[in-house]
Amino acid sequence: MTSQGFFYPRSVTGQAALLPPPPWHYAGDLLTIEYRTDPKLIADLLPKPLTLAAEDPGAVALIWADWQSCGGTKAEMLDPIRAQYKEAFAVVRCTFEGRTYSRCIYIWVDKDFAMLRGIHQGYPKKFGSVHMTRPHPFAPAPQVAVGGRFGATLAANDRRLAEAVITLTGPAERNGFVNGHPMAHHRWLPAIDGKGDAHAELIESTGAKFEGAQTYAASVDHFALFESPTEELAALKPREIIGAYYRQIGVVWNGGKSLVPEIK
Amino acid sequence: MTSQGFFYPRSVTGQAALLPPPPWHYAGDLLTIEYRTDPKLIADLLPKPLTLAAEDPGAVALIWADWQSCGGTKAEMLDPIRAQYKEAFAVVRCTFEGRTYSRCIYIWVDKDFAMLRGIHQGYPKKFGSVHMTRPHPFAPAPQVAVGGRFGATLAANDRRLAEAVITLTGPAERNGFVNGHPMAHHRWLPAIDGKGDAHAELIESTGAKFEGAQTYAASVDHFALFESPTEELAALKPREIIGAYYRQIGVVWNGGKSLVPEIK
Amino acid sequence: MTSQGFFYPRSVTGQAALLPPPPWHYAGDLLTIEYRTDPKLIADLLPKPLTLAAEDPGAVALIWADWQSCGGTKAEMLDPIRAQYKEAFAVVRCTFEGRTYSRCIYIWVDKDFAMLRGIHQGYPKKFGSVHMTRPHPFAPAPQVAVGGRFGATLAANDRRLAEAVITLTGPAERNGFVNGHPMAHHRWLPAIDGKGDAHAELIESTGAKFEGAQTYAASVDHFALFESPTEELAALKPREIIGAYYRQIGVVWNGGKSLVPEIK
Amino acid sequence: MTSQGFFYPRSVTGQAALLPPPPWHYAGDLLTIEYRTDPKLIADLLPKPLTLAAEDPGAVALIWADWQSCGGTKAEMLDPIRAQYKEAFAVVRCTFEGRTYSRCIYIWVDKDFAMLRGIHQGYPKKFGSVHMTRPHPFAPAPQVAVGGRFGATLAANDRRLAEAVITLTGPAERNGFVNGHPMAHHRWLPAIDGKGDAHAELIESTGAKFEGAQTYAASVDHFALFESPTEELAALKPREIIGAYYRQIGVVWNGGKSLVPEIK
Repeated sequence: MTSQGFFYPRSVTGQAALLPPPPWHYAGDLLTIEYRTDPKLIADLLPKPLTLAAEDPGAVALIWADWQSCGGTKAEMLDPIRAQYKEAFAVVRCTFEGRTYSRCIYIWVDKDFAMLRGIHQGYPKKFGSVHMTRPHPFAPAPQVAVGGRFGATLAANDRRLAEAVITLTGPAERNGFVNGHPMAHHRWLPAIDGKGDAHAELIESTGAKFEGAQTYAASVDHFALFESPTEELAALKPREIIGAYYRQIGVVWNGGKSLVPEIK
Repeated sequence: MTSQGFFYPRSVTGQAALLPPPPWHYAGDLLTIEYRTDPKLIADLLPKPLTLAAEDPGAVALIWADWQSCGGTKAEMLDPIRAQYKEAFAVVRCTFEGRTYSRCIYIWVDKDFAMLRGIHQGYPKKFGSVHMTRPHPFAPAPQVAVGGRFGATLAANDRRLAEAVITLTGPAERNGFVNGHPMAHHRWLPAIDGKGDAHAELIESTGAKFEGAQTYAASVDHFALFESPTEELAALKPREIIGAYYRQIGVVWNGGKSLVPEIK
Repeated sequence: MTSQGFFYPRSVTGQAALLPPPPWHYAGDLLTIEYRTDPKLIADLLPKPLTLAAEDPGAVALIWADWQSCGGTKAEMLDPIRAQYKEAFAVVRCTFEGRTYSRCIYIWVDKDFAMLRGIHQGYPKKFGSVHMTRPHPFAPAPQVAVGGRFGATLAANDRRLAEAVITLTGPAERNGFVNGHPMAHHRWLPAIDGKGDAHAELIESTGAKFEGAQTYAASVDHFALFESPTEELAALKPREIIGAYYRQIGVVWNGGKSLVPEIK
Repeated sequence: MTSQGFFYPRSVTGQAALLPPPPWHYAGDLLTIEYRTDPKLIADLLPKPLTLAAEDPGAVALIWADWQSCGGTKAEMLDPIRAQYKEAFAVVRCTFEGRTYSRCIYIWVDKDFAMLRGIHQGYPKKFGSVHMTRPHPFAPAPQVAVGGRFGATLAANDRRLAEAVITLTGPAERNGFVNGHPMAHHRWLPAIDGKGDAHAELIESTGAKFEGAQTYAASVDHFALFESPTEELAALKPREIIGAYYRQIGVVWNGGKSLVPEIK
């Protein structure tokens, strides 16, 4: 019998599959803090064959995102518990064969479908509790406009991991630079007998379609990373804040390509 | 020692209080379905001294709301886990001393501060899981505009209780009529010895300040109420759909007044 | 029409009521840490007419509890999402008319029915995330026996507030002394116009029936309270640990009595 | 740089890894319902090279489990938010190279670490809300003894999917037969370009160590599966109940072996 469905669980009809096959459609808001840390700490997070970015190798982006997403039928949008999720993720840059890539080193999401997408895309997803102030036309909510003030928090296992408060200062040309390249991610599956990996692949992935509203730059009123016995985010101590940004976007993701199908 | 704080827990500094004293500020979106049910069922939900509304006594509004709210310092807005909540509530109309009031008969919220506010305001709050499609500038999300399609769901105790899908059809003059009056709510506190009520009061409450964007009328593509052993919402069976609406609003609530301080 | 139901929401059948009328039946495990803090801090948490306990007035019990509870039909026990909840609470002692009472000054629960019970019983309940190691016959779980090691944590609003690790050392005669008296609680309902309280009552409450297994004393391997902008628990700094205890109990609660029906 | 950590996210210290390397230790309770459905429906859920079990091919076990689990340091046991999880899963039997295996066809868990373990072990995990009555020494809780009555429920995406109530009738020789074989699971990783699978492996896995208390057989007082747009569990309609069981166990899992490293 041929079972169907893109990913777990697979069945004849595919109805039970946690994920529909790509393309996946996303609309959401991004709140980004960029800062510099010790590049040595980033090198430690780049498995072979990746190496540090040539320029500004210590740059980190910590990004909060509030998403609504769906597959091709868009049915999830009308049963919004299946469409809405939030995530926070740390991105660095790296080099592969002379080209610069972005790479997510830590990420926390709050829904199962987002976690399984991560397995497919090579994002190292864990569960977190993510909150972001949402823009709205009326007070006390901020608007995406000069003076708009947004808070963002991240927790996992009942411990606060990160928090930020930013105030929008004016239009910006780009939404930071750290998360601006195609992603280079490892897709690993440890061997079932515990001896190394059954699958170790380097893939490249980027959005298939992108729309974005005006980006706003922001001042950073508050930014803190907190220690936790289950995390290493706080080890990436900020030496210097680069900037902060807020942007509303629409994205389509439709797969990537294998850069190194079998990493030796 | 005089302990302070508006409501539980009270302390000298008030820092631990779950609620700051009013005024409370709210910004959010309302998705409303209005329908008619058997007026007898509504009469059964109106304790004395309330009676059925003179006109259209069987009208019910089921309203989903996605809020950000805060006290006077607005500190919660920048720690958004403390500001954001969603609720779904059923409203009917009733009569007291010849005047028409709105009255919330059932309500589900997803945060503790919202539940304690309910004790103060006389809303019969329980916990629920509430989801609403959110408007956003980019696809696949809808906009608050003709053709925008929104889903809304309610569950409690792991059972789906209500769901709706609406499509915005055009501007409307008002956001329905059932929830348009001051609220008439009972504030009860059962006697600690189990014999009747230690406190039974009828209060009136309404917003102290209101802002609203253009209301949109909507067609009702799907609307269903489901049975649950812990609920009676589905007993209010729709005989006829009146209409549906979507509106973004900003509200300030700053207390109410006692209509009957001691109901005998 | 006479509406029924013990507490919100009230209806003719009472089916929708969040709480059945007492008696309420509970079975669960208690993990208790007792310590001494500055008695001045406790005095600040005792509103009139309460005063400090005559002996050992700085004693505090921080108690974690993992409960299954239900009303008279016990139907909740077979739909366990409606029966199971966890809580953590801080208890002190106080004096009223020459008699010593226990009093809960802070409490966090994780279900709505527990929160509404708190309104009835005068517990200042907020929502928290509470976790306790559970005894079980097999490793790696501990047993309720000498050497059994239990962890307990409390968080609210995505911040860790308290954590403890204890190791059972042997049988004990009693489960601490701080929570051993009838409770003296204020039941407050702020006036709807914001001017003082519409209801302010002092009540006494205690279990109607009690069963308990052998209490175990424990060493305290770890105990920490953490600061939070929404809490004051950490202000009750431990000067000295008194002891720790673990006990499995069964309780019935069936109302209390009013000590001061109207506090002036 | 060699990054470490068993699975996502990998780092030099391994501190941030969601999973420690096996062995993994578990203690928990299993509530099992076994029934027969149409074998054709099971055949549809067996991808090649698996085929139906030779005997009683339509047998299904629906199992609820309440776990505490940890890695080799057992640190999670004392920070119990990291150790405790619940799951519900449907198991069938199948044949590979003449041998009978058990196979999990659907499974819902409530923690991220359990979900990532599933990726490693080939369990098709999604998130669910799982509740089980817990045994306890005192009423109103049941004991693991004749007459003990336990409820179990499963929901996902705010919809109830399954519920059961059983009453223990007496000791049983085994905890059912459907979940009694080594597991045969596919480990899949879809190709990043969407064309088939980058990894498709058949693995075998079983417990490395097992302890169990006396199994109890039970009568099935209530058993229902509910439709959901995201699930196919209810399609496996019961034709006949085989039996029900309750058992407390301790298990160690320490990897498996590859049966077919590359399924063509």
